[in-house]
Amino acid sequence: MSFASAPTVPTNTSHYADLPAASSALFQAKARRGLTFDQIAKAIGKDEVWLAAAFYGQARFTEDELITVGEVLGIGSSELVSQLGSHWWPNRGLGPMPPTDPVIYRLYESVLVYGHAIKAVIHEKFGDGIMSMIDCKINVERKEDPKGDRVLLTFDGKFLPYARW
Amino acid sequence: MSFASAPTVPTNTSHYADLPAASSALFQAKARRGLTFDQIAKAIGKDEVWLAAAFYGQARFTEDELITVGEVLGIGSSELVSQLGSHWWPNRGLGPMPPTDPVIYRLYESVLVYGHAIKAVIHEKFGDGIMSMIDCKINVERKEDPKGDRVLLTFDGKFLPYARW
Amino acid sequence: MSFASAPTVPTNTSHYADLPAASSALFQAKARRGLTFDQIAKAIGKDEVWLAAAFYGQARFTEDELITVGEVLGIGSSELVSQLGSHWWPNRGLGPMPPTDPVIYRLYESVLVYGHAIKAVIHEKFGDGIMSMIDCKINVERKEDPKGDRVLLTFDGKFLPYARW
Amino acid sequence: MSFASAPTVPTNTSHYADLPAASSALFQAKARRGLTFDQIAKAIGKDEVWLAAAFYGQARFTEDELITVGEVLGIGSSELVSQLGSHWWPNRGLGPMPPTDPVIYRLYESVLVYGHAIKAVIHEKFGDGIMSMIDCKINVERKEDPKGDRVLLTFDGKFLPYARW
Amino acid sequence: MSFASAPTVPTNTSHYADLPAASSALFQAKARRGLTFDQIAKAIGKDEVWLAAAFYGQARFTEDELITVGEVLGIGSSELVSQLGSHWWPNRGLGPMPPTDPVIYRLYESVLVYGHAIKAVIHEKFGDGIMSMIDCKINVERKEDPKGDRVLLTFDGKFLPYARW
Amino acid sequence: MSFASAPTVPTNTSHYADLPAASSALFQAKARRGLTFDQIAKAIGKDEVWLAAAFYGQARFTEDELITVGEVLGIGSSELVSQLGSHWWPNRGLGPMPPTDPVIYRLYESVLVYGHAIKAVIHEKFGDGIMSMIDCKINVERKEDPKGDRVLLTFDGKFLPYARW
Amino acid sequence: MSFASAPTVPTNTSHYADLPAASSALFQAKARRGLTFDQIAKAIGKDEVWLAAAFYGQARFTEDELITVGEVLGIGSSELVSQLGSHWWPNRGLGPMPPTDPVIYRLYESVLVYGHAIKAVIHEKFGDGIMSMIDCKINVERKEDPKGDRVLLTFDGKFLPYARW
Amino acid sequence: MSFASAPTVPTNTSHYADLPAASSALFQAKARRGLTFDQIAKAIGKDEVWLAAAFYGQARFTEDELITVGEVLGIGSSELVSQLGSHWWPNRGLGPMPPTDPVIYRLYESVLVYGHAIKAVIHEKFGDGIMSMIDCKINVERKEDPKGDRVLLTFDGKFLPYARW
Amino acid sequence: MSFASAPTVPTNTSHYADLPAASSALFQAKARRGLTFDQIAKAIGKDEVWLAAAFYGQARFTEDELITVGEVLGIGSSELVSQLGSHWWPNRGLGPMPPTDPVIYRLYESVLVYGHAIKAVIHEKFGDGIMSMIDCKINVERKEDPKGDRVLLTFDGKFLPYARW
Amino acid sequence: MSFASAPTVPTNTSHYADLPAASSALFQAKARRGLTFDQIAKAIGKDEVWLAAAFYGQARFTEDELITVGEVLGIGSSELVSQLGSHWWPNRGLGPMPPTDPVIYRLYESVLVYGHAIKAVIHEKFGDGIMSMIDCKINVERKEDPKGDRVLLTFDGKFLPYARW
Repeated sequence: MSFASAPTVPTNTSHYADLPAASSALFQAKARRGLTFDQIAKAIGKDEVWLAAAFYGQARFTEDELITVGEVLGIGSSELVSQLGSHWWPNRGLGPMPPTDPVIYRLYESVLVYGHAIKAVIHEKFGDGIMSMIDCKINVERKEDPKGDRVLLTFDGKFLPYARW
Repeated sequence: MSFASAPTVPTNTSHYADLPAASSALFQAKARRGLTFDQIAKAIGKDEVWLAAAFYGQARFTEDELITVGEVLGIGSSELVSQLGSHWWPNRGLGPMPPTDPVIYRLYESVLVYGHAIKAVIHEKFGDGIMSMIDCKINVERKEDPKGDRVLLTFDGKFLPYARW
Repeated sequence: MSFASAPTVPTNTSHYADLPAASSALFQAKARRGLTFDQIAKAIGKDEVWLAAAFYGQARFTEDELITVGEVLGIGSSELVSQLGSHWWPNRGLGPMPPTDPVIYRLYESVLVYGHAIKAVIHEKFGDGIMSMIDCKINVERKEDPKGDRVLLTFDGKFLPYARW
Repeated sequence: MSFASAPTVPTNTSHYADLPAASSALFQAKARRGLTFDQIAKAIGKDEVWLAAAFYGQARFTEDELITVGEVLGIGSSELVSQLGSHWWPNRGLGPMPPTDPVIYRLYESVLVYGHAIKAVIHEKFGDGIMSMIDCKINVERKEDPKGDRVLLTFDGKFLPYARW
Repeated sequence: MSFASAPTVPTNTSHYADLPAASSALFQAKARRGLTFDQIAKAIGKDEVWLAAAFYGQARFTEDELITVGEVLGIGSSELVSQLGSHWWPNRGLGPMPPTDPVIYRLYESVLVYGHAIKAVIHEKFGDGIMSMIDCKINVERKEDPKGDRVLLTFDGKFLPYARW
Repeated sequence: MSFASAPTVPTNTSHYADLPAASSALFQAKARRGLTFDQIAKAIGKDEVWLAAAFYGQARFTEDELITVGEVLGIGSSELVSQLGSHWWPNRGLGPMPPTDPVIYRLYESVLVYGHAIKAVIHEKFGDGIMSMIDCKINVERKEDPKGDRVLLTFDGKFLPYARW
Repeated sequence: MSFASAPTVPTNTSHYADLPAASSALFQAKARRGLTFDQIAKAIGKDEVWLAAAFYGQARFTEDELITVGEVLGIGSSELVSQLGSHWWPNRGLGPMPPTDPVIYRLYESVLVYGHAIKAVIHEKFGDGIMSMIDCKINVERKEDPKGDRVLLTFDGKFLPYARW
Repeated sequence: MSFASAPTVPTNTSHYADLPAASSALFQAKARRGLTFDQIAKAIGKDEVWLAAAFYGQARFTEDELITVGEVLGIGSSELVSQLGSHWWPNRGLGPMPPTDPVIYRLYESVLVYGHAIKAVIHEKFGDGIMSMIDCKINVERKEDPKGDRVLLTFDGKFLPYARW
Repeated sequence: MSFASAPTVPTNTSHYADLPAASSALFQAKARRGLTFDQIAKAIGKDEVWLAAAFYGQARFTEDELITVGEVLGIGSSELVSQLGSHWWPNRGLGPMPPTDPVIYRLYESVLVYGHAIKAVIHEKFGDGIMSMIDCKINVERKEDPKGDRVLLTFDGKFLPYARW
Repeated sequence: MSFASAPTVPTNTSHYADLPAASSALFQAKARRGLTFDQIAKAIGKDEVWLAAAFYGQARFTEDELITVGEVLGIGSSELVSQLGSHWWPNRGLGPMPPTDPVIYRLYESVLVYGHAIKAVIHEKFGDGIMSMIDCKINVERKEDPKGDRVLLTFDGKFLPYARW
C-alpha cells in the first residue's frame, strides 16, 4: 500500500471485500461527508437500518432514491444507477455463519438459545405459520438507562399461516 | 409404539428428543392441563418467552419457582427440584444450525440479511461494543393488522462497550 | 430382531428413525390397509403431497382431520389426537443436506443448477421479493409420454414483495 | 473504483464473481439493451428459464444460438463462440449451499420440508426410480390472484426407473 | 454383551448400525448359511453387486425375489415381505462422506483425482449430458495377474443428454 | 472484459480457475487446434482419460511427453518443461466435494449408493484389502445401444492386501 | 419418565449424555452430598478446575484419589476403580465446536478475537514455540469488584520451543 | 447405573461406544486379566500396535488368532469367532476428525504442519507415487532420554508408483 | 516476485492476507523500526496484547492513539486516521476454526478439554451467567522457571448474570 | 498466460498459491539450480524434511541460515531476511483437511485407522500424556526392498505427561 496515493477514505478493509463496487463507493462517500445512516435515510424517507442494509447490497433502492442518495453523498448518480439500477437485484446473505464478529454473533446466539422458545410462543399465539422475514421491518433504538443504556432491537413481521391444500 | 399403553400426551416427538427428562415432563403436563406459556409464566411473575426458554432447559428456575410451577402443572415439585434444582445449570444452545424449521430459520435469515446493517447502526449509535444477549429480555407480541396480524419480536439488551486495557 | 414377535408392517427402518412415534404408526397403518396417500388424502379433502408431508410430521392435521384419518386407517383417534393434537406443532426440516437419496438429491440439484436462473426470472417478472414456501401448494402428477412417462412437479407459491421501511 | 472510467452497466457485483467472463458480458449487454430474458430466449426459440441458466453458464448454447444471441445483444459473436463454443462445456452448480439468498433458500427449504413427501408420492405413482433433473424442463409463470399474484414454478422431468441387474 | 445369550452370528457391529432390521437379518442368515453374494444372487437371477446393494437397503427386491431369498437363507419370507415388501422404498445413501473406510475412500478418491478427466472425456465423446447412475449396472470382477490380481470395476450407465427447452 | 483484446480461446472460465497456468495453456491450445484428448494421447502412447487427467494437473508427463505434447499443440515445449518438468509434482484432488456438477456428482453418488456393496464383494472375492487407486487404469468407452448409447467406465486397479505385522 | 421411580438426583440431562457412566455417578453423588468442587478437590490435594475436569472424564485420578473421592462422596470405591482405574485413559475433548453454550462460547470467542494477538506476543516474548496445554494449570478465581465481580481465569503453561533438526 | 450390579470392568465409556460388541469384550477381558497389548500380541506373533488396532475393529484376526486370543483372555473363542470370524470385515476409520483427543490430534497436526514437506521429500526420493497405508507397518517404541523419554513412532510403508496408461 | 523492487519489509505473507491494508502497514512499520508491541503500547498507555489485537484489526484505536502510533512508527497519521478513524469499526474474528496454527490451536484445545470444567466452576462460584469476553482484559506474562519458562495467560472478565424477565 | 514472458521456473501452480512470496522464490530457485532438499539442508546442518517444511513456511530459519540458503540458491539474502527474518513467525497449518492429495491423505488415513491404537499403546507404555509434535523430529528414508522399495517415516517426539494440579 502506497500511502502517498492513498484515498482519503478507507478501501479494502475486510468487511467491504465481498460487496459490490457500488457499496464500497457508498461507504466511502458516507465517511467523507461525515453523515450518519439516519441522515441519509431521512433524505429518502427510509429507516436507518433499511438504508444500512441497502448500502451492504441487501436491499434495493428505487432509481429515484439512488439519485437522491447520490446527491446527498456527492457521488455521480448515473454511476449509481448504472450499477444498482433497474437491472440489478440484491443477492442477499452476507458474511460467514456462524458469525465471527461478536456483535453479529450475539444475534445468532439469540437463535440458538431462544429460537425454540420464540417458535413455541408464536405457535401458541398465532397457530401454524411463521413470522415473515420478507414483510418485516427492523428497528434499532437507544434506550437510556442509568445502569447502562440499552439497545432496543425490534422485528415487526407479518404472520404467515401455512398453506393447507 | 403400543397405543394401548400410550400416554395421553405426546412423548418422544423429535423436537423433545434432546431435552432433559424434566423438560419433557413439563411439556406433557402443560398439554395435559391445557395451559398457555403465559398462564404458567404469570404464576411465577415471568414472561412467556422466558418461561418457554426455561421449559426447553435454556433458562433456570429458582427452587421457589420450580415448586410453584410443579403445583400449577400438577407435577410433584420434589422431582422437579431433584432434577432442575440448585445443582443444575442450563447447557444452552438447542437444535441444528442452520435451523431446518422455517420459523427458526427466519430468525437466522435475519442475521444473514440484516446482521451487518444492525451492527453498523449499533456502532453508529453506541460506539464500539455489543448488545448483550445475557442481559437481554425478549418479547413476542401480537399486533392486529387488517392486512394480516403481525409478530412484534423485541430484544431489549444492555449495550456493553469493549474493554480497552 | 426376533421374527417371532415381528409386527406385520415395517418398523425401525432407517428413514422412519427421526420421526415422531405417531408418524411411524401412520405409515404402518397405511401399509397394513394398503391405501395410497391419495385415498387417505381424499377422505379429508386434501392433496396427496400435503398428506404425505403431514405423515412425515411436516404439516399439521386439524383434530377433525386426525379423527377421520384414524378411522380410515383403523388407528384409535384418541391416540393420534393425544400425540398430534392442538398442543403439537411441526418441527419442520427432515433428512441430511445435501440429501443422500437420489430422488431427493435431484430436487436439491435443481437448486444448485437452476436456482440462480429461477431467481433471475422471478425478479424480472415480479420485482424484488420471493416465492413463498409457506403459502405454497405443491403437486405431483404423472404425465403419460410414449418416450417414458414424466413427473410434473408444481410449486404454486404466493409472491411476497420485500418490505421497505 | 474510478467512476470516470466506469462502464454504463454493472461489473464485479458479487453474484457475477464466480461466472465465466462471457457470462458477465452477456448480463452487461442485456442490461445495456434493456431486454428481458424472454425477449432474448424467443430469438433462439428457447424458454426464459433455460436462457437465464445459459447466461449463468449452467446450460450450453449451440454455436448458431450464440451467433443469434450475439446479434440480439450487440456483442461480437466471434468472441462468444471463442469462449462458449464447441470446446466449452458447462461446469454446473452455482452459489453456496445452503443458499444465503432468500429467493433461492425457499427452493432449498422446499427440499427440506417437502422432499420426503415428494419422494413418497413419486414412488407410489411411478415405482422405484427418480424424476430426472437432466431430462427436465423448468418453467416460471405469473398467475394473477386478487389476494396477491402467485409464482407457478413447474418441473417437467422424465421418470427414470432404477436399473436392476 | 452377555456371551451366554449371544447369537451365533454378529449383531450390532458398527457398519450394520444404520441399516433396516431386515438387512441385519439378511446378513446374519448369509453368515449362518455360509453363502456368497454370488450364490444368493444367482438364485434370483441377479448380479452379486446388485444383491449386496439390496442387502444394504440400497436396492429393492420384488416380492417374488424376497420369497426366494428367504428360502435360500432360511428366513421366514413373510417377515421379509412385511418389512421390505411393496410398501417399502429404499432410502439410498449410506455411510459418512468423505468415507473413512479405505476401500470406499479409494472410490471417493477416484472422483477427486479423475472426476474432471472423466467428465471431459464423456463430453468429448457424447456431448452435453451425464452418465446415468439410475440406469447403471455395476460389476466387480477378479482379474488374475502374476504381479498381483486386479479388481475390474465396471460402470455401464446410459448416457442422458441435457434437456433444452 | 474488453472483447477487442480477447483471446480466441476461453480464459478464466470457472473450472479452469484452480489450475496451474500451464494447464490453462494446454486447454487453450487443444481448443485452438481442434484436437480430441484421444488424438493428443495417441501421440504419446497414452489413454485419453490419463491425458485429460494430466491436462488438469492430476497426472505427470515425462519431459519427453511434454516435448511431444508441445509440438502437437503448437506450444513452446521449453515453457511446458519449465513449468511441468522434473521439479514439478502433481497436487492431486480437484473441485468441491460433494461435487456440484451433475456429471461428477453421479460418480460421487455411486460411492454413496453402491460403495458398501462394492466393498462387500471385493472382500468376498479378494479378502481384507483394497482396490488401489494408485496402480489403477481408468477407461471411458462409448457403447452403442438402440435404447440410447451407454458409457462404459472401467476401473482396473490392483488388489492390495492389508499388511499384518 | 416415571416420576414415582425417579432418583433424587438428576439423570440423563443432556450435558451428561456423552459422559462415562462413572462421571454421571460422580455428579449425582456430589449433588446428593451438596459438596462443591473445591471441597472434594481439597480432599485429594487438587484444584477445583482439575477436579471438575476429572469428573467430566477429561483428567485421570490415581487409584488412591479414586478411593478418597469415593469415600468423600459415599460411592463404593471399588466401582470407581473398576471403571476409572489403571486400565482407563481419558478420551479428551467434549461438546460441540463451535460451542453452543454461551459460557463456553465466550472462551472460544477469545480464540477468534484475541488468538492472533496472543500468538504474536508469545512469539515476541519467547521465540518460536507454543504455550503447552499439556503441562498447563488452569485456575478460576472470583475477584470482588464494586462495579460487578470479575472472573480471573489463568492459564499457566510451559513454553515449548519448536524442535529444529 | 446401579453400582450393585456393576461389572468389574468398564462398560459404556465413551470411546468404546462406536465399537463392535466383541471389541468391548476384548478390552474388558484385557483389563480383567491385567495384560498389556504386547503380551497378548506375542501370543499370536504380532506387534502390539497391530493388536490394539484389531481390538478397535481396525484390523482382522484369522480364526486361529481369535481362538488363541480367546484363550489368553479367557473369553469363549466360539463367541469371538461367531462375531469376528470369516464373514466379518473391518469397517475402518474411527473417531471424529479433526480429533478432539490431544494424543490423536498431535498426529493430525503432523499432517497439517509437515504433510507437504513429507510429500515433497517422498517425491524427490521416489518419484510420483505414494507411501502405502495398506502395506504399512507401524511401530511405537520408548526411547530413554535424560531430558525426558521420547516416543519413536515409525511408519514402514511400501512406495507405490502412480500408474500411467 | 521481483526481488529488485522488493520492499524491505515482508508483504503478502499469508497471515496478513485477510487484514485491512492499514494493518499490513502497521506490521511493516513495526518491523522496520524494530519495536516490540510493548514499546508501542506504552506510548499510548495500553497493554501489549490489546495493541497486537488492534494491529490485527480486532480492537479500535481512538484518533489520538492513531496519531501517536503513527508518530512512533513513522507512518503518516492522516493515512491511519483516514483508514481506521472514527468511521471505522472492527470486524472481529480472524483465521480458520479449528485453528491450524499450533499456538492458536492450544487455546482452542483448552476449550475442548477444559471448557466444561471452567463452566462448572464459574456456575458454582458465581451462579447462572457468563464471564464477559467484551469487558475482559487479557494479559501474557513470562514466568521464569528452572524447568523451562512458563506462559502466564490471564483473562480478567466481568461476570454477567443472566437476565430473568 | 503469455509464454514469451514466462519465467523459466514454475509460478502460480496451485500448491504454491497459499505460500508467502518468499517461499515461492525459494522453490523457484531450487528448481533453477537443480538442488535437492537434502543438498540445501546439508549447507545449514539441517535435515531435508525440516528444510522442506521451512520452504513451505512451516518452520523458521535463523538469519544466518537465511543468508547461507540465499547464497546456495543464488537469491539475494537481504530480500530473504527482509521477508523471513527476525520479525517473521510461521503461521503453521497448510492445505485442506481432509487432504485431497493422495500422498498426504495416506498420512491422514493413518490417523483415522491407527490413531486409537497408537494412543492406546502410548498410554500403556508412558502413562497419561502425549507425544509432542513441537519437540518432534521427522525423518523420511528410502529402504531398499526386492518386492518394492519402502518409505520409512519416523516421528521422534518427546513424551509429555499431563499436568495435575
